[in-house]
Amino acid sequence: MKIAIAQLNYIIGDFEGNTDKMLEAVDIAKKQGADIVTFSELATCGYPPRDFLEFNDFINRADKSIEKLKKASKDIAIVVGSPTKNPIIEGKDLYNSVFFLYDGEEKLRQHKTLLPTYDIFDEYRYFEPSSEWGVVEFKGKKIALNVCEDLWNLGNENPLYTINPMDEVIKLNPDFVINVSASPFDYKQAKTRLKVLKANVDRYNIPFFYINHVGAQTELIFDGGSVVMSPNGKVYEEMSYFKEEIKIFDLEDVNRQGQNIEQAKDKIALIHDALVLGVKDYFGKLGFKKAVIGLSGGLDSALTTVLAVEALGNENVFVIMMPSQFSSKHSISDSIDLADNLDIDYEIIKIEDIYEEFTSKLKPLFKDLPFNVAEENIQARTRGTLLMGYSNKFGNILLNTTNKSEMAVGYGTLYGDLAGGLSVIADIYKTEAYEVARYINRDDIVIPCHIINKPPSAELRPNQFDSDSLPDYDILDKILFEYIEKRKGPKEIIAMGYDKKLVQRVLRLVNINEFKRYQTAPVLRVSKKAFGMGRRMPIVAKYLS
Amino acid sequence: MKIAIAQLNYIIGDFEGNTDKMLEAVDIAKKQGADIVTFSELATCGYPPRDFLEFNDFINRADKSIEKLKKASKDIAIVVGSPTKNPIIEGKDLYNSVFFLYDGEEKLRQHKTLLPTYDIFDEYRYFEPSSEWGVVEFKGKKIALNVCEDLWNLGNENPLYTINPMDEVIKLNPDFVINVSASPFDYKQAKTRLKVLKANVDRYNIPFFYINHVGAQTELIFDGGSVVMSPNGKVYEEMSYFKEEIKIFDLEDVNRQGQNIEQAKDKIALIHDALVLGVKDYFGKLGFKKAVIGLSGGLDSALTTVLAVEALGNENVFVIMMPSQFSSKHSISDSIDLADNLDIDYEIIKIEDIYEEFTSKLKPLFKDLPFNVAEENIQARTRGTLLMGYSNKFGNILLNTTNKSEMAVGYGTLYGDLAGGLSVIADIYKTEAYEVARYINRDDIVIPCHIINKPPSAELRPNQFDSDSLPDYDILDKILFEYIEKRKGPKEIIAMGYDKKLVQRVLRLVNINEFKRYQTAPVLRVSKKAFGMGRRMPIVAKYLS
Repeated sequence: MKIAIAQLNYIIGDFEGNTDKMLEAVDIAKKQGADIVTFSELATCGYPPRDFLEFNDFINRADKSIEKLKKASKDIAIVVGSPTKNPIIEGKDLYNSVFFLYDGEEKLRQHKTLLPTYDIFDEYRYFEPSSEWGVVEFKGKKIALNVCEDLWNLGNENPLYTINPMDEVIKLNPDFVINVSASPFDYKQAKTRLKVLKANVDRYNIPFFYINHVGAQTELIFDGGSVVMSPNGKVYEEMSYFKEEIKIFDLEDVNRQGQNIEQAKDKIALIHDALVLGVKDYFGKLGFKKAVIGLSGGLDSALTTVLAVEALGNENVFVIMMPSQFSSKHSISDSIDLADNLDIDYEIIKIEDIYEEFTSKLKPLFKDLPFNVAEENIQARTRGTLLMGYSNKFGNILLNTTNKSEMAVGYGTLYGDLAGGLSVIADIYKTEAYEVARYINRDDIVIPCHIINKPPSAELRPNQFDSDSLPDYDILDKILFEYIEKRKGPKEIIAMGYDKKLVQRVLRLVNINEFKRYQTAPVLRVSKKAFGMGRRMPIVAKYLS
Repeated sequence: MKIAIAQLNYIIGDFEGNTDKMLEAVDIAKKQGADIVTFSELATCGYPPRDFLEFNDFINRADKSIEKLKKASKDIAIVVGSPTKNPIIEGKDLYNSVFFLYDGEEKLRQHKTLLPTYDIFDEYRYFEPSSEWGVVEFKGKKIALNVCEDLWNLGNENPLYTINPMDEVIKLNPDFVINVSASPFDYKQAKTRLKVLKANVDRYNIPFFYINHVGAQTELIFDGGSVVMSPNGKVYEEMSYFKEEIKIFDLEDVNRQGQNIEQAKDKIALIHDALVLGVKDYFGKLGFKKAVIGLSGGLDSALTTVLAVEALGNENVFVIMMPSQFSSKHSISDSIDLADNLDIDYEIIKIEDIYEEFTSKLKPLFKDLPFNVAEENIQARTRGTLLMGYSNKFGNILLNTTNKSEMAVGYGTLYGDLAGGLSVIADIYKTEAYEVARYINRDDIVIPCHIINKPPSAELRPNQFDSDSLPDYDILDKILFEYIEKRKGPKEIIAMGYDKKLVQRVLRLVNINEFKRYQTAPVLRVSKKAFGMGRRMPIVAKYLS
């Protein structure tokens, strides 16, 4: 028996486009002799559809896509995920379902049991869990179907659910399992995924076909990496990351583990590739082509520009340099070097006159009060307004260049350098930004070395450096990681050996700056805990603040 | 037996402050001869604590608050909600629990069964549902305890759960029920609450004591309105809305429904009072006193200013008028009239020079391209920068003045008129904003009549009116209500008699402007479906767009 995995990139709510893409894959799989072709979780509507699921109209359109696929299931079986209505009045109105379609008929509809409701997941917001499990008989084989999380209560230390749906369905003696998933990327996820799949195979001793979604959906990046596991608990094949792929697998060969193909898992390379796809799909799926970025001469804007060029092409990235009276000379020369290396267009706009105009208008109110953060922010907001002016005039989306360290401690100006439609690098700490920059420069110098080597500065007052107001990034990032990713409290972090006052100050900065993060662009997620939909904090609170 | 309801206003994460407040209430109740004093859901940590719940340190501190309350439970029983750890490794790590403390001991710990996970609620993100139900015996009575949603699967057409925990606990023959809640306000909620409580009493025929939280938590406004229901299915007392209150009830008198006290439920008055509390608590709980607002001469900024003055006092509200070359004369004269009526300070700053400076700097890029939204937005962002400059210099929080109609269709400038720390009126449609304005003027003219009567205009180009680019608000608001609050699709709305092209245009505008709403301030929630945490939409999508 031959099983085709179609690892495809869908657009949320684009029912026609998604269905057409699947129908093409059905044709390809059929021509190559596949008996079954499989797609990912909620492939009809795209994942995550979020509150669009609350619209009847949306579910009806998903139903129509299933009807089309059902008609196409001649001489080939189609496995596909889609939201379906729960006919029972009690409970949630929907199920997260996977279909087995064959010969123009629905042969099995299996609902998802384990509904991830943590971090970026909200599935119990919409779906009722399944309490029934079945297999489909097809060409002499019994096949169990399930959806993503249904495999994930095994292989981890803190199981989130009190049941394992595979323990139920295994009683029906399936020959193999097809799992349709939409499991978003973080730089540790591919390893975890293999560990979880291995835990399942070790327990149930049958082959698993795991089909993941690929492509970015606003802040989430789905990396693909669909997996076929042989019943000996080893990987038969791990498909490509970050790109669409259709591959056909022979069940007999999978059963005897005739091969072992895995992908490289270097953290920094993965982050780099994920961010490029994140930018590319944000623009492509919204129907935009061009980006504008403010280049400061610092690392973050340089890195963002390189990633944008890789995603969109150098002809589609425009940069503006906006020096003030506080800017260093190298802020411009370094930026020009970068633009030249990338062969992108740029413009220089001096902001001093606008800044003076602002402060003179505010003089009757500010009187002789000393220069402070108010004047610093006016510079940042002047730059934001110039960039957004360009964006509005020419249709280039402004990319935000803030990193995760700054975003965490609120080292940035709302409506100023925090402006932009998408935050490209706000899920990587400053120390990781350096690593990605070095990765980019691995063969040729793309980012000028001076940009990487000079001390970070916001240049909003004379001789300002980040180190004036923040601890060294080496230490700051470690404390932030313990607090944000690991959710450790002050006592635990201090017990690790960090200075008590420093820890308290850093945690306080994170908490009192929640209001800023509330108003910033979506952040491309590459870690286990990114700012945005996966981290939900009250703005008004008195905890560690 | 005498039961005291302490309807109090907590601060999230302020364990000491919240506990001290409860201990004071314990003393008051004890002095007045109460046998039991009851507090609301998660009163130790405040509701909703959101992802703070994922910190062990946070739960440990809640445990300490329970220890303090336990010690205070001499000669009086204390009923209080708090998060607790789930000792079982499988399942979520926490329970949402209610305690019965007496004589220094924990007499009952009942976990919440029904975990609201819809709209603004995320409880299954954190909590394991209960599967055990008990009663506590106290002074010859059996008392059932439960938490908020545990009563809410009755009395509505679309039950979200497949079980009713009251059906279980009623088997133990409780004499009455204490329900600790944190149920946020919307202008229909008080009616629904009484309906749900009545459905419970009608089914179980015993008295219910329902204790609600009061006070605003960022965007959510808890209205109090705690309820005592007599076993005949009628209200014994509905406590005040929007303020703290401690009241003592005699069980015998409740049993014979010795009184019937209910609160007035006028939609517009409720919205008005809710918004005032929302502003007051946002500032008070963050430790801020003063607001700054940009006055345009239009209805929305006028209304926001009045609400801010009611919440903070006229000495704490400062307004800035920022006319451009496109502003009408009345934009200033009307604003001055309003400031005079309210006796608040103001300043006038003309923005034309700054605008000219911006456009001259952009001239090398814009060349001779015609005036369009880019230049309009520069004006709005100039105003935003001036207001934020004042905010940064003097510590006044900028209040955003956008209404729900504008927010829905994206009629506003990111980082311009969409700037601000809190959106005061962005959950009321323009037509409702007029109603609130008329309510404010019910006795005296506070908002000058000309502000209410003139046609709405953004005044960003010559002779611009909202009606140039938007349908009449009377029609627009109705279509928006069907789409946003009722979640009807295009077919259903068109079938109601609205013009097909108009409906498609409006729905498209709502969907393509998701990116703007992602970056705007928290919105005080007064309807069943507000923008913000209760409405979660992908930015990148192709549905009705």
